[in-house]
Amino acid sequence: MTQVPSTPLVPDNTLITATPEDGRALAITLARHSVHAMQHELEVLTNGRAQYSHDPFGLIAASHVIAVEFATIAAANGYWRGATV
Amino acid sequence: MTQVPSTPLVPDNTLITATPEDGRALAITLARHSVHAMQHELEVLTNGRAQYSHDPFGLIAASHVIAVEFATIAAANGYWRGATV
Amino acid sequence: MTQVPSTPLVPDNTLITATPEDGRALAITLARHSVHAMQHELEVLTNGRAQYSHDPFGLIAASHVIAVEFATIAAANGYWRGATV
Amino acid sequence: MTQVPSTPLVPDNTLITATPEDGRALAITLARHSVHAMQHELEVLTNGRAQYSHDPFGLIAASHVIAVEFATIAAANGYWRGATV
Amino acid sequence: MTQVPSTPLVPDNTLITATPEDGRALAITLARHSVHAMQHELEVLTNGRAQYSHDPFGLIAASHVIAVEFATIAAANGYWRGATV
Amino acid sequence: MTQVPSTPLVPDNTLITATPEDGRALAITLARHSVHAMQHELEVLTNGRAQYSHDPFGLIAASHVIAVEFATIAAANGYWRGATV
Repeated sequence: MTQVPSTPLVPDNTLITATPEDGRALAITLARHSVHAMQHELEVLTNGRAQYSHDPFGLIAASHVIAVEFATIAAANGYWRGATV
Repeated sequence: MTQVPSTPLVPDNTLITATPEDGRALAITLARHSVHAMQHELEVLTNGRAQYSHDPFGLIAASHVIAVEFATIAAANGYWRGATV
Repeated sequence: MTQVPSTPLVPDNTLITATPEDGRALAITLARHSVHAMQHELEVLTNGRAQYSHDPFGLIAASHVIAVEFATIAAANGYWRGATV
Repeated sequence: MTQVPSTPLVPDNTLITATPEDGRALAITLARHSVHAMQHELEVLTNGRAQYSHDPFGLIAASHVIAVEFATIAAANGYWRGATV
Repeated sequence: MTQVPSTPLVPDNTLITATPEDGRALAITLARHSVHAMQHELEVLTNGRAQYSHDPFGLIAASHVIAVEFATIAAANGYWRGATV
Repeated sequence: MTQVPSTPLVPDNTLITATPEDGRALAITLARHSVHAMQHELEVLTNGRAQYSHDPFGLIAASHVIAVEFATIAAANGYWRGATV
Protein backbone atom coordinates (compact mmCIF):
# COMPACT_ATOMS: atom_id res chain seq x y z
CA MET A 1 0.00 0.00 0.00
CA THR A 2 1.21 3.52 -0.78
CA GLN A 3 1.17 5.77 2.27
CA VAL A 4 -0.10 9.36 2.12
CA PRO A 5 1.68 11.68 4.58
CA SER A 6 -0.67 12.68 7.38
CA THR A 7 1.00 16.01 8.03
CA PRO A 8 1.06 18.89 7.72
CA LEU A 9 -2.61 19.35 8.55
CA VAL A 10 -2.29 23.07 7.75
CA PRO A 11 0.07 23.82 4.85
CA ASP A 12 2.45 26.68 5.70
CA ASN A 13 0.95 26.58 9.20
CA THR A 14 -1.24 29.63 8.68
CA LEU A 15 -4.88 30.46 7.92
CA ILE A 16 -3.96 33.77 6.34
CA THR A 17 -4.20 33.93 2.56
CA ALA A 18 -3.82 36.75 0.08
CA THR A 19 -7.23 36.41 -1.53
CA PRO A 20 -10.63 34.69 -1.19
CA GLU A 21 -9.63 32.36 -4.02
CA ASP A 22 -6.57 31.25 -2.06
CA GLY A 23 -8.71 30.92 1.05
CA ARG A 24 -11.14 28.72 -0.77
CA ALA A 25 -8.32 26.51 -2.02
CA LEU A 26 -7.05 26.26 1.54
CA ALA A 27 -10.51 25.18 2.74
CA ILE A 28 -10.44 22.31 0.27
CA THR A 29 -6.93 21.39 1.37
CA LEU A 30 -7.79 21.41 5.07
CA ALA A 31 -10.74 19.11 4.43
CA ARG A 32 -8.58 16.73 2.40
CA HIS A 33 -5.81 16.67 4.97
CA SER A 34 -8.36 15.76 7.66
CA VAL A 35 -9.27 12.76 5.59
CA HIS A 36 -5.61 11.85 5.09
CA ALA A 37 -5.07 12.00 8.85
CA MET A 38 -7.74 9.30 9.22
CA GLN A 39 -6.85 7.19 6.18
CA HIS A 40 -3.25 6.98 5.05
CA GLU A 41 -3.54 4.42 2.25
CA LEU A 42 -3.56 5.99 -1.17
CA GLU A 43 -5.49 3.15 -2.78
CA VAL A 44 -8.32 3.42 -0.26
CA LEU A 45 -8.44 7.19 -0.77
CA THR A 46 -8.44 6.84 -4.55
CA ASN A 47 -11.25 4.30 -4.45
CA GLY A 48 -13.24 6.40 -2.01
CA ARG A 49 -12.81 9.48 -4.14
CA ALA A 50 -14.08 7.65 -7.22
CA GLN A 51 -17.11 6.65 -5.19
CA TYR A 52 -18.18 9.92 -3.58
CA SER A 53 -17.30 12.08 -6.59
CA HIS A 54 -19.80 10.14 -8.70
CA ASP A 55 -22.53 10.33 -6.06
CA PRO A 56 -24.34 13.67 -5.80
CA PHE A 57 -24.95 13.09 -2.10
CA GLY A 58 -21.22 12.53 -1.61
CA LEU A 59 -20.41 15.73 -3.47
CA ILE A 60 -22.96 17.69 -1.44
CA ALA A 61 -21.60 16.28 1.83
CA ALA A 62 -18.03 17.12 0.86
CA SER A 63 -18.98 20.62 -0.26
CA HIS A 64 -20.64 21.11 3.14
CA VAL A 65 -17.32 20.44 4.86
CA ILE A 66 -15.57 22.88 2.55
CA ALA A 67 -18.15 25.54 3.45
CA VAL A 68 -17.50 25.06 7.17
CA GLU A 69 -13.74 25.21 6.73
CA PHE A 70 -14.06 28.30 4.57
CA ALA A 71 -16.15 30.08 7.22
CA THR A 72 -13.22 29.80 9.62
CA ILE A 73 -10.63 30.87 7.06
CA ALA A 74 -12.73 33.81 5.91
CA ALA A 75 -13.14 35.01 9.50
CA ALA A 76 -9.39 34.62 10.07
CA ASN A 77 -8.74 36.90 7.09
CA GLY A 78 -11.29 39.54 8.06
CA TYR A 79 -13.16 38.43 4.95
CA TRP A 80 -10.43 40.04 2.82
CA ARG A 81 -12.44 43.27 3.05
CA GLY A 82 -9.43 45.46 2.41
CA ALA A 83 -8.04 43.35 -0.41
CA THR A 84 -7.59 44.85 -3.83
CA VAL A 85 -8.88 42.45 -6.42
CA MET B 1 -16.09 13.66 -21.54
CA THR B 2 -16.60 17.43 -21.39
CA GLN B 3 -14.47 19.09 -18.72
CA VAL B 4 -15.85 21.77 -16.42
CA PRO B 5 -13.22 24.34 -15.37
CA SER B 6 -12.34 23.92 -11.71
CA THR B 7 -11.42 27.55 -11.17
CA PRO B 8 -12.10 30.18 -10.19
CA LEU B 9 -13.50 28.93 -6.91
CA VAL B 10 -14.57 32.49 -6.02
CA PRO B 11 -15.78 34.50 -9.03
CA ASP B 12 -14.22 37.99 -9.10
CA ASN B 13 -12.15 36.86 -6.11
CA THR B 14 -14.26 38.72 -3.55
CA LEU B 15 -17.00 37.99 -1.01
CA ILE B 16 -18.32 41.53 -1.19
CA THR B 17 -21.59 41.99 -3.05
CA ALA B 18 -23.86 44.97 -3.53
CA THR B 19 -27.00 43.39 -2.11
CA PRO B 20 -28.30 40.34 -0.20
CA GLU B 21 -29.72 39.01 -3.46
CA ASP B 22 -26.27 39.09 -5.03
CA GLY B 23 -24.81 37.54 -1.89
CA ARG B 24 -27.30 34.73 -2.07
CA ALA B 25 -26.43 34.09 -5.70
CA LEU B 26 -22.76 34.01 -4.74
CA ALA B 27 -23.50 31.43 -2.03
CA ILE B 28 -25.06 29.16 -4.65
CA THR B 29 -22.09 29.72 -6.95
CA LEU B 30 -19.51 28.94 -4.25
CA ALA B 31 -21.29 25.69 -3.44
CA ARG B 32 -21.42 24.72 -7.12
CA HIS B 33 -17.76 25.54 -7.70
CA SER B 34 -16.80 23.35 -4.73
CA VAL B 35 -18.53 20.49 -6.48
CA HIS B 36 -16.80 21.31 -9.77
CA ALA B 37 -13.44 21.25 -7.99
CA MET B 38 -14.16 17.65 -6.99
CA GLN B 39 -15.84 16.47 -10.19
CA HIS B 40 -14.78 17.96 -13.52
CA GLU B 41 -16.82 15.86 -15.91
CA LEU B 42 -19.91 17.63 -17.16
CA GLU B 43 -21.83 14.44 -17.83
CA VAL B 44 -21.36 13.20 -14.28
CA LEU B 45 -22.44 16.57 -12.92
CA THR B 46 -25.49 16.68 -15.16
CA ASN B 47 -26.54 13.20 -14.14
CA GLY B 48 -25.96 13.95 -10.48
CA ARG B 49 -27.96 17.14 -10.72
CA ALA B 50 -30.89 15.30 -12.25
CA GLN B 51 -30.72 12.87 -9.37
CA TYR B 52 -30.50 15.18 -6.35
CA SER B 53 -32.82 17.82 -7.76
CA HIS B 54 -35.62 15.25 -7.94
CA ASP B 55 -34.99 13.96 -4.43
CA PRO B 56 -36.29 16.14 -1.59
CA PHE B 57 -33.47 14.95 0.66
CA GLY B 58 -30.95 15.99 -1.98
CA LEU B 59 -32.54 19.41 -2.28
CA ILE B 60 -32.57 19.86 1.50
CA ALA B 61 -28.92 18.80 1.77
CA ALA B 62 -27.89 21.19 -1.00
CA SER B 63 -29.89 24.05 0.52
CA HIS B 64 -28.08 23.40 3.81
CA VAL B 65 -24.74 24.02 2.11
CA ILE B 66 -26.07 27.23 0.56
CA ALA B 67 -27.15 28.39 4.02
CA VAL B 68 -23.67 27.82 5.43
CA GLU B 69 -21.99 29.62 2.53
CA PHE B 70 -24.43 32.49 2.85
CA ALA B 71 -23.68 32.90 6.56
CA THR B 72 -20.06 33.63 5.67
CA ILE B 73 -20.91 35.98 2.82
CA ALA B 74 -23.47 37.85 4.92
CA ALA B 75 -20.93 38.35 7.71
CA ALA B 76 -18.35 39.54 5.16
CA ASN B 77 -20.80 42.19 3.98
CA GLY B 78 -21.82 43.37 7.44
CA TYR B 79 -25.22 41.93 6.60
CA TRP B 80 -25.73 44.77 4.11
CA ARG B 81 -27.15 46.78 7.02
CA GLY B 82 -26.39 50.11 5.42
CA ALA B 83 -27.64 49.14 1.97
CA THR B 84 -30.46 51.07 0.40
CA VAL B 85 -32.91 48.66 -1.12
CA MET C 1 -44.74 21.46 -16.28
CA THR C 2 -45.47 24.60 -14.30
CA GLN C 3 -42.36 26.69 -13.67
CA VAL C 4 -41.65 28.26 -10.26
CA PRO C 5 -39.76 31.57 -10.51
CA SER C 6 -36.20 31.14 -9.28
CA THR C 7 -35.82 34.72 -8.14
CA PRO C 8 -35.79 36.69 -6.01
CA LEU C 9 -33.67 34.60 -3.69
CA VAL C 10 -34.08 37.23 -0.96
CA PRO C 11 -37.55 38.86 -0.93
CA ASP C 12 -37.29 42.66 -0.64
CA ASN C 13 -33.53 42.19 -0.94
CA THR C 14 -32.86 42.66 2.78
CA LEU C 15 -32.16 40.55 5.85
CA ILE C 16 -33.57 43.18 8.18
CA THR C 17 -36.96 42.41 9.69
CA ALA C 18 -39.07 44.16 12.29
CA THR C 19 -39.37 41.24 14.68
CA PRO C 20 -38.02 37.74 15.42
CA GLU C 21 -41.26 36.29 14.08
CA ASP C 22 -40.69 38.03 10.76
CA GLY C 23 -37.06 36.90 10.81
CA ARG C 24 -38.13 33.34 11.33
CA ALA C 25 -40.56 33.55 8.42
CA LEU C 26 -37.74 34.95 6.29
CA ALA C 27 -35.52 32.00 7.26
CA ILE C 28 -38.15 29.60 5.97
CA THR C 29 -38.52 31.64 2.78
CA LEU C 30 -34.77 31.73 2.12
CA ALA C 31 -34.56 27.96 2.50
CA ARG C 32 -37.51 27.46 0.14
CA HIS C 33 -36.12 29.83 -2.46
CA SER C 34 -32.81 27.94 -2.42
CA VAL C 35 -34.74 24.83 -3.34
CA HIS C 36 -36.63 26.68 -6.07
CA ALA C 37 -33.32 27.86 -7.52
CA MET C 38 -32.32 24.22 -7.93
CA GLN C 39 -35.69 22.80 -8.99
CA HIS C 40 -38.08 24.97 -10.99
CA GLU C 41 -40.84 22.46 -11.71
CA LEU C 42 -43.82 22.89 -9.47
CA GLU C 43 -44.93 19.27 -9.78
CA VAL C 44 -41.55 17.96 -8.66
CA LEU C 45 -41.55 20.38 -5.74
CA THR C 46 -45.08 19.41 -4.74
CA ASN C 47 -44.27 15.72 -4.85
CA GLY C 48 -41.05 16.23 -2.93
CA ARG C 49 -42.84 18.26 -0.29
CA ALA C 50 -45.42 15.53 0.20
CA GLN C 51 -42.57 13.10 0.68
CA TYR C 52 -40.33 14.92 3.15
CA SER C 53 -43.17 16.46 5.14
CA HIS C 54 -44.45 12.98 5.99
CA ASP C 55 -41.01 11.70 6.95
CA PRO C 56 -39.73 12.77 10.38
CA PHE C 57 -36.15 12.66 9.11
CA GLY C 58 -37.11 14.96 6.26
CA LEU C 59 -38.76 17.39 8.66
CA ILE C 60 -35.74 17.35 10.96
CA ALA C 61 -33.35 17.93 8.04
CA ALA C 62 -35.45 20.83 6.76
CA SER C 63 -35.75 22.37 10.22
CA HIS C 64 -31.95 22.19 10.48
CA VAL C 65 -31.63 24.37 7.38
CA ILE C 66 -34.12 26.85 8.81
CA ALA C 67 -32.06 27.03 12.00
CA VAL C 68 -28.90 27.86 10.04
CA GLU C 69 -30.64 30.51 7.96
CA PHE C 70 -32.17 32.00 11.09
CA ALA C 71 -28.77 32.28 12.79
CA THR C 72 -27.64 34.58 9.97
CA ILE C 73 -30.82 36.65 9.98
CA ALA C 74 -30.78 36.99 13.76
CA ALA C 75 -27.19 38.21 13.70
CA ALA C 76 -28.06 40.67 10.92
CA ASN C 77 -30.77 42.13 13.12
CA GLY C 78 -28.67 42.36 16.26
CA TYR C 79 -30.99 39.71 17.67
CA TRP C 80 -33.76 42.33 17.81
CA ARG C 81 -32.48 43.18 21.29
CA GLY C 82 -33.90 46.66 21.23
CA ALA C 83 -37.27 45.65 19.83
CA THR C 84 -40.40 46.34 21.79
CA VAL C 85 -42.59 43.30 21.72
CA MET D 1 -57.29 15.60 10.44
CA THR D 2 -56.54 17.88 13.38
CA GLN D 3 -54.66 21.01 12.37
CA VAL D 4 -51.72 22.34 14.41
CA PRO D 5 -51.41 26.13 14.28
CA SER D 6 -48.37 27.14 12.23
CA THR D 7 -47.78 30.39 14.08
CA PRO D 8 -46.33 31.93 16.06
CA LEU D 9 -42.94 30.68 14.95
CA VAL D 10 -41.33 32.56 17.87
CA PRO D 11 -43.45 32.54 21.05
CA ASP D 12 -43.67 36.02 22.60
CA ASN D 13 -41.77 37.23 19.53
CA THR D 14 -38.43 37.52 21.32
CA LEU D 15 -35.19 35.59 21.65
CA ILE D 16 -34.47 37.09 25.07
CA THR D 17 -34.95 34.76 28.02
CA ALA D 18 -34.24 35.13 31.71
CA THR D 19 -31.98 32.10 32.04
CA PRO D 20 -30.08 29.47 30.03
CA GLU D 21 -32.73 26.94 31.03
CA ASP D 22 -35.43 29.12 29.48
CA GLY D 23 -33.22 29.65 26.45
CA ARG D 24 -32.81 25.95 26.01
CA ALA D 25 -36.56 25.42 26.22
CA LEU D 26 -37.01 28.12 23.59
CA ALA D 27 -34.52 26.32 21.32
CA ILE D 28 -36.65 23.20 21.49
CA THR D 29 -39.78 25.22 20.82
CA LEU D 30 -38.29 26.99 17.79
CA ALA D 31 -37.28 23.66 16.29
CA ARG D 32 -40.75 22.22 16.90
CA HIS D 33 -42.50 25.23 15.43
CA SER D 34 -40.36 24.94 12.28
CA VAL D 35 -41.68 21.44 11.89
CA HIS D 36 -45.26 22.60 12.48
CA ALA D 37 -44.83 25.23 9.78
CA MET D 38 -44.06 22.44 7.34
CA GLN D 39 -46.53 19.84 8.58
CA HIS D 40 -49.85 20.99 10.06
CA GLU D 41 -51.54 17.65 10.60
CA LEU D 42 -51.40 16.50 14.19
CA GLU D 43 -51.69 12.82 13.31
CA VAL D 44 -48.71 12.97 10.96
CA LEU D 45 -46.69 14.80 13.61
CA THR D 46 -47.65 12.32 16.30
CA ASN D 47 -46.71 9.36 14.12
CA GLY D 48 -43.45 10.98 13.10
CA ARG D 49 -42.58 11.73 16.69
CA ALA D 50 -43.16 8.11 17.69
CA GLN D 51 -40.82 7.10 14.89
CA TYR D 52 -37.85 9.42 15.42
CA SER D 53 -38.01 9.36 19.21
CA HIS D 54 -37.45 5.60 19.16
CA ASP D 55 -34.58 5.81 16.69
CA PRO D 56 -31.23 6.93 18.12
CA PHE D 57 -30.31 8.50 14.79
CA GLY D 58 -33.54 10.48 14.85
CA LEU D 59 -32.85 11.67 18.38
CA ILE D 60 -29.30 12.68 17.46
CA ALA D 61 -30.49 14.54 14.37
CA ALA D 62 -33.14 16.38 16.36
CA SER D 63 -30.70 17.25 19.14
CA HIS D 64 -28.39 18.69 16.49
CA VAL D 65 -31.10 21.13 15.42
CA ILE D 66 -31.68 22.12 19.04
CA ALA D 67 -27.96 22.81 19.42
CA VAL D 68 -27.97 25.13 16.39
CA GLU D 69 -31.05 27.00 17.59
CA PHE D 70 -29.55 27.33 21.04
CA ALA D 71 -26.34 28.83 19.65
CA THR D 72 -28.39 31.70 18.23
CA ILE D 73 -30.45 32.19 21.38
CA ALA D 74 -27.37 32.09 23.61
CA ALA D 75 -25.64 34.73 21.48
CA ALA D 76 -28.80 36.88 21.58
CA ASN D 77 -28.70 36.77 25.36
CA GLY D 78 -25.00 37.53 25.69
CA TYR D 79 -24.71 33.99 27.05
CA TRP D 80 -26.52 35.13 30.20
CA ARG D 81 -23.09 36.06 31.56
CA GLY D 82 -24.48 38.59 34.00
CA ALA D 83 -27.32 36.38 35.23
CA THR D 84 -27.57 35.46 38.85
CA VAL D 85 -28.35 31.81 39.15
CA MET E 1 -41.22 1.92 31.96
CA THR E 2 -38.76 3.96 34.01
CA GLN E 3 -39.04 7.69 33.39
CA VAL E 4 -35.99 9.90 32.96
CA PRO E 5 -36.51 13.45 34.21
CA SER E 6 -36.70 15.90 31.31
CA THR E 7 -35.38 18.84 33.27
CA PRO E 8 -33.18 20.62 33.96
CA LEU E 9 -32.05 21.10 30.39
CA VAL E 10 -29.07 23.13 31.64
CA PRO E 11 -27.61 21.85 34.92
CA ASP E 12 -27.00 24.70 37.37
CA ASN E 13 -28.67 26.96 34.81
CA THR E 14 -25.43 28.44 33.52
CA LEU E 15 -23.07 28.05 30.57
CA ILE E 16 -20.11 29.32 32.58
CA THR E 17 -17.58 26.70 33.62
CA ALA E 18 -14.21 26.91 35.33
CA THR E 19 -12.23 25.14 32.62
CA PRO E 20 -12.41 23.81 29.05
CA GLU E 21 -12.66 20.30 30.46
CA ASP E 22 -15.75 21.27 32.43
CA GLY E 23 -17.12 23.04 29.37
CA ARG E 24 -16.66 19.94 27.30
CA ALA E 25 -18.46 17.84 29.90
CA LEU E 26 -21.30 20.37 29.87
CA ALA E 27 -21.53 20.07 26.08
CA ILE E 28 -22.05 16.34 26.41
CA THR E 29 -24.62 16.89 29.12
CA LEU E 30 -26.59 19.45 27.10
CA ALA E 31 -26.74 17.07 24.16
CA ARG E 32 -27.92 14.24 26.39
CA HIS E 33 -30.56 16.34 28.08
CA SER E 34 -31.92 17.35 24.68
CA VAL E 35 -32.43 13.69 23.95
CA HIS E 36 -34.07 13.14 27.33
CA ALA E 37 -36.47 15.98 26.62
CA MET E 38 -37.63 14.08 23.54
CA GLN E 39 -37.54 10.55 24.95
CA HIS E 40 -38.33 10.01 28.62
CA GLU E 41 -38.28 6.22 28.78
CA LEU E 42 -35.06 4.84 30.18
CA GLU E 43 -35.36 1.51 28.38
CA VAL E 44 -35.69 3.19 24.98
CA LEU E 45 -32.70 5.39 25.76
CA THR E 46 -30.62 2.45 26.92
CA ASN E 47 -31.43 0.46 23.81
CA GLY E 48 -30.74 3.42 21.58
CA ARG E 49 -27.43 4.06 23.25
CA ALA E 50 -26.36 0.46 22.73
CA GLN E 51 -27.22 0.88 19.07
CA TYR E 52 -25.53 4.16 18.18
CA SER E 53 -22.48 3.60 20.39
CA HIS E 54 -21.63 0.49 18.39
CA ASP E 55 -22.14 2.18 15.05
CA PRO E 56 -19.31 4.46 13.90
CA PHE E 57 -21.78 6.63 12.03
CA GLY E 58 -23.80 7.02 15.22
CA LEU E 59 -20.72 7.99 17.18
CA ILE E 60 -19.69 10.50 14.53
CA ALA E 61 -23.19 12.02 14.43
CA ALA E 62 -23.28 12.31 18.21
CA SER E 63 -19.81 13.82 18.37
CA HIS E 64 -20.95 16.40 15.81
CA VAL E 65 -23.68 17.55 18.17
CA ILE E 66 -21.19 17.78 21.02
CA ALA E 67 -18.95 19.96 18.83
CA VAL E 68 -21.82 22.36 18.12
CA GLU E 69 -22.80 22.58 21.78
CA PHE E 70 -19.19 23.14 22.76
CA ALA E 71 -18.82 26.02 20.31
CA THR E 72 -21.57 27.87 22.18
CA ILE E 73 -20.18 27.07 25.61
CA ALA E 74 -16.65 28.05 24.60
CA ALA E 75 -17.87 31.40 23.27
CA ALA E 76 -19.84 31.96 26.48
CA ASN E 77 -16.66 31.49 28.48
CA GLY E 78 -14.49 33.71 26.30
CA TYR E 79 -12.66 30.51 25.38
CA TRP E 80 -11.23 30.40 28.92
CA ARG E 81 -8.38 32.56 27.59
CA GLY E 82 -7.52 33.95 31.00
CA ALA E 83 -7.74 30.63 32.82
CA THR E 84 -4.76 29.28 34.64
CA VAL E 85 -4.36 25.64 33.84
CA MET F 1 -12.59 -5.86 26.76
CA THR F 2 -9.88 -3.22 26.93
CA GLN F 3 -11.12 0.07 28.33
CA VAL F 4 -10.17 3.41 26.81
CA PRO F 5 -9.97 6.24 29.36
CA SER F 6 -12.85 8.66 28.88
CA THR F 7 -10.97 11.66 30.25
CA PRO F 8 -9.49 14.10 29.79
CA LEU F 9 -11.87 15.43 27.19
CA VAL F 10 -9.55 18.39 26.59
CA PRO F 11 -5.84 17.49 26.83
CA ASP F 12 -3.93 20.05 28.94
CA ASN F 13 -7.32 21.63 29.66
CA THR F 14 -6.83 24.49 27.22
CA LEU F 15 -7.92 25.50 23.71
CA ILE F 16 -4.85 27.68 23.22
CA THR F 17 -2.20 26.28 20.90
CA ALA F 18 1.01 27.73 19.51
CA THR F 19 0.17 27.29 15.83
CA PRO F 20 -2.67 26.43 13.43
CA GLU F 21 -1.10 23.01 12.94
CA ASP F 22 -1.32 22.34 16.66
CA GLY F 23 -4.87 23.67 16.68
CA ARG F 24 -5.83 21.32 13.92
CA ALA F 25 -4.34 18.38 15.79
CA LEU F 26 -6.32 19.44 18.85
CA ALA F 27 -9.52 19.50 16.79
CA ILE F 28 -8.95 15.90 15.79
CA THR F 29 -8.20 14.98 19.40
CA LEU F 30 -11.34 16.66 20.75
CA ALA F 31 -13.47 14.79 18.24
CA ARG F 32 -11.84 11.48 19.13
CA HIS F 33 -12.22 12.06 22.86
CA SER F 34 -15.93 12.76 22.37
CA VAL F 35 -16.22 9.35 20.80
CA HIS F 36 -14.26 7.76 23.64
CA ALA F 37 -16.61 9.37 26.15
CA MET F 38 -19.48 7.52 24.48
CA GLN F 39 -17.70 4.23 23.74
CA HIS F 40 -15.03 3.00 26.12
CA GLU F 41 -14.26 -0.39 24.59
CA LEU F 42 -11.14 -0.41 22.49
CA GLU F 43 -12.26 -3.32 20.33
CA VAL F 44 -15.49 -1.58 19.38
CA LEU F 45 -13.57 1.59 18.57
CA THR F 46 -11.01 -0.29 16.50
CA ASN F 47 -13.69 -2.08 14.53
CA GLY F 48 -15.64 1.12 14.02
CA ARG F 49 -12.54 2.93 12.83
CA ALA F 50 -11.82 0.23 10.28
CA GLN F 51 -15.37 0.64 9.03
CA TYR F 52 -15.70 4.42 8.67
CA SER F 53 -12.13 4.97 7.49
CA HIS F 54 -12.80 2.76 4.47
CA ASP F 55 -16.10 4.44 3.67
CA PRO F 56 -15.85 7.84 1.95
CA PHE F 57 -19.09 8.93 3.58
CA GLY F 58 -17.65 8.05 6.97
CA LEU F 59 -14.51 10.02 6.26
CA ILE F 60 -16.52 13.01 5.08
CA ALA F 61 -18.74 12.88 8.17
CA ALA F 62 -15.74 12.68 10.46
CA SER F 63 -13.94 15.51 8.67
CA HIS F 64 -17.08 17.62 9.14
CA VAL F 65 -16.81 17.21 12.90
CA ILE F 66 -13.12 18.17 12.78
CA ALA F 67 -14.06 21.32 10.86
CA VAL F 68 -16.58 22.33 13.52
CA GLU F 69 -14.15 21.69 16.36
CA PHE F 70 -11.44 23.62 14.53
CA ALA F 71 -13.72 26.64 14.09
CA THR F 72 -13.97 26.92 17.88
CA ILE F 73 -10.27 26.41 18.46
CA ALA F 74 -9.32 28.91 15.76
CA ALA F 75 -11.61 31.54 17.29
CA ALA F 76 -10.14 30.83 20.73
CA ASN F 77 -6.68 31.54 19.35
CA GLY F 78 -7.63 34.70 17.49
CA TYR F 79 -6.88 32.72 14.34
CA TRP F 80 -3.17 32.85 15.22
CA ARG F 81 -3.05 36.16 13.33
CA GLY F 82 -0.01 37.39 15.20
CA ALA F 83 1.89 34.12 14.97
CA THR F 84 5.22 34.01 13.23
CA VAL F 85 5.36 31.01 10.98
